Amino acid sequence: MTDGGGTANHGSRGPLLLTPGPLTTSATVKQAMVRDWGSRDDGFIALTRSVRDTLTGLAGGRGTHTTVPLQGSGTFAVEAMLGTFVPPNGAVLVAANGQYGRRMAEICGRIGRTVMVDEVPFHRPLDADAIGRRLDADPAIGHVAVVHCETTTGILNPLEDIAAVVAQHGRRLLVDGMSAFGALPVDAAVVPFDALAASANKCLQGVPGLGFVICREAALSDAAGNAPSLSLDLHDQWRGFEANGQWRFTPPTQVLASLAQALQELANEGGPPGRLDRYRQSCAVLTDGMAALGFRPYLAPAVQAPIIVTFHMPGHPRFEFDRFYGGLKDRGFVIYPGKLTNEATFRVGCIGDVNADDMRAFLAAVTAVLTADGIDLRVGVR
Amino acid sequence: MTDGGGTANHGSRGPLLLTPGPLTTSATVKQAMVRDWGSRDDGFIALTRSVRDTLTGLAGGRGTHTTVPLQGSGTFAVEAMLGTFVPPNGAVLVAANGQYGRRMAEICGRIGRTVMVDEVPFHRPLDADAIGRRLDADPAIGHVAVVHCETTTGILNPLEDIAAVVAQHGRRLLVDGMSAFGALPVDAAVVPFDALAASANKCLQGVPGLGFVICREAALSDAAGNAPSLSLDLHDQWRGFEANGQWRFTPPTQVLASLAQALQELANEGGPPGRLDRYRQSCAVLTDGMAALGFRPYLAPAVQAPIIVTFHMPGHPRFEFDRFYGGLKDRGFVIYPGKLTNEATFRVGCIGDVNADDMRAFLAAVTAVLTADGIDLRVGVR
Repeated sequence: MTDGGGTANHGSRGPLLLTPGPLTTSATVKQAMVRDWGSRDDGFIALTRSVRDTLTGLAGGRGTHTTVPLQGSGTFAVEAMLGTFVPPNGAVLVAANGQYGRRMAEICGRIGRTVMVDEVPFHRPLDADAIGRRLDADPAIGHVAVVHCETTTGILNPLEDIAAVVAQHGRRLLVDGMSAFGALPVDAAVVPFDALAASANKCLQGVPGLGFVICREAALSDAAGNAPSLSLDLHDQWRGFEANGQWRFTPPTQVLASLAQALQELANEGGPPGRLDRYRQSCAVLTDGMAALGFRPYLAPAVQAPIIVTFHMPGHPRFEFDRFYGGLKDRGFVIYPGKLTNEATFRVGCIGDVNADDMRAFLAAVTAVLTADGIDLRVGVR
Repeated sequence: MTDGGGTANHGSRGPLLLTPGPLTTSATVKQAMVRDWGSRDDGFIALTRSVRDTLTGLAGGRGTHTTVPLQGSGTFAVEAMLGTFVPPNGAVLVAANGQYGRRMAEICGRIGRTVMVDEVPFHRPLDADAIGRRLDADPAIGHVAVVHCETTTGILNPLEDIAAVVAQHGRRLLVDGMSAFGALPVDAAVVPFDALAASANKCLQGVPGLGFVICREAALSDAAGNAPSLSLDLHDQWRGFEANGQWRFTPPTQVLASLAQALQELANEGGPPGRLDRYRQSCAVLTDGMAALGFRPYLAPAVQAPIIVTFHMPGHPRFEFDRFYGGLKDRGFVIYPGKLTNEATFRVGCIGDVNADDMRAFLAAVTAVLTADGIDLRVGVR
């Protein structure tokens, strides 16, 4: 997966994307797109069935859950999940510690669902007990929506604890599993959820253009007529698949084919546990190396998921982010410009087809960029 | 574009898709997907800007219109158009002569817009004068929505006449230009419309996963807050592009890159007029050849667009569509299974990276499949 060189193009790999997605995909995942598919032909129907079944299996949901893929970005899948599962007269509690939690609340407002938002500071994980107290206090809340790993900061939320509390209170759980699914474990047999939305181009390492929602089949069956949208109706989309295996509306055929290849490569890596091991190694090399260079992480290590790492913007008077970003890009690394926290921060992704050696090459590039500008962050300027 | 051989795989091209999309794309359009893009990086921002500007130019809309690309299938773009442009208290007239017109009406019902549907038989084009009379009779109608070329049958609707009538009545026109845009002419300076929705994978010959809406900028500016969806809000999507050139939510980066390549290839072919010439030649070879073999077209020649051709299912006692479809597929041609008319019909697409020689090879395959089963449709069984 690496040429170990730190050259601008990493052999034939092109610049490496150290972002929360779209991310670096393997050559074989990209090559799987070089084919035309008839979307109503048997071959594509079989491909769709196989991908759906594999995704359900990854969530431990065979026999209880079904996977409904949906055209568009991950946000489309999240909106479809909220619109399909929360009935028009329902009320949903969004527990949020980042922008993606807030986005779920915004969606509920747009689609006319009653929503309550309980927010905690972005550097703190969600509190399952607090959610339980809120559910005790408000019997109108039928659904709870949370983000598994908040891409805003990279923080890991205690999904198992939250799911247990929601189930104990007899409510339904909706999960934005976007940046976690495929690496961080989720087992539907242990973590009760009605729906979990994710996308092809995060830890599954496919290309963007396709989301999916893993749905408890009984809940999905009950959700007929809820959705205030035709395109984003997961119940109708599911009925279409069940009827003839076909997508209701034109699917992104090449994106699905590349996801099928990506799922095979996930299996080859040992499934989510194998992938998580690699991400953990990459993340450890990244965080240790950046700390040694004088960068300060935004999160405490105990709540940092090995998905994406947020760093405080250095206070050094000669450090300019645009120069830093451009210098890294010249050396073949694209990090994530733009921040979502209130404080000045930047983010580096650990996911995608990159490994610890790539992270070492990245650290060498960071060192080179800082050195070229005569910046030493270890000399305390702040 | 052809190896002239009619072998099952057409050299390296793979099976040819003679469908209304996803369709046969060129090798270079597919190859343009073999790259990872950082969606917030300058290079991708420039790519997005270029594609938007080219699409606006294809519609003759520079200076008055702007193009808003949207993740997902063409239907997502149509739903976004209706939800963004028709205000919550607005009423829309859908004039329909096929399933895609009906789908616009279904969308309006789902998203809570008042909708009237005036339907004409599927083999007849829409009647601009009838639309005018309806607008005279009902002052509550603010918008008229029509399909340019109905993929249900392949019929061409008189868009210029309809646009003129709608404008004379001081109403706004919304167009589903899905299967026509890029080949059939649309000039915003002559055909007044507020919005026209289309997709990457029809006459533009890109891959599926991306739609777009060409919007009159003044109308789009007035449409703030209309959309009953976050994902499908074209006003917000546009504001996002205008603010920093970036997509609000993760774009299908590879699909956009392949569309950029496809647009270059459209220009190389002489733009929409050049492309339309090729489609006309393919369509003429197809319809003449099929007629000579005893197939009867569903539409009168005068209203047939050179996009997709619907044929009556032969009444010959030994003709079975599944065998016919399978025999053609074995010979490297995928036609469109399934029909949308009330009568028994099947469809063959003329669009995509195929030409008259490919159509001749297709006719040879049709002849071979029929001959193998001892079927001669010219011997009048019906």
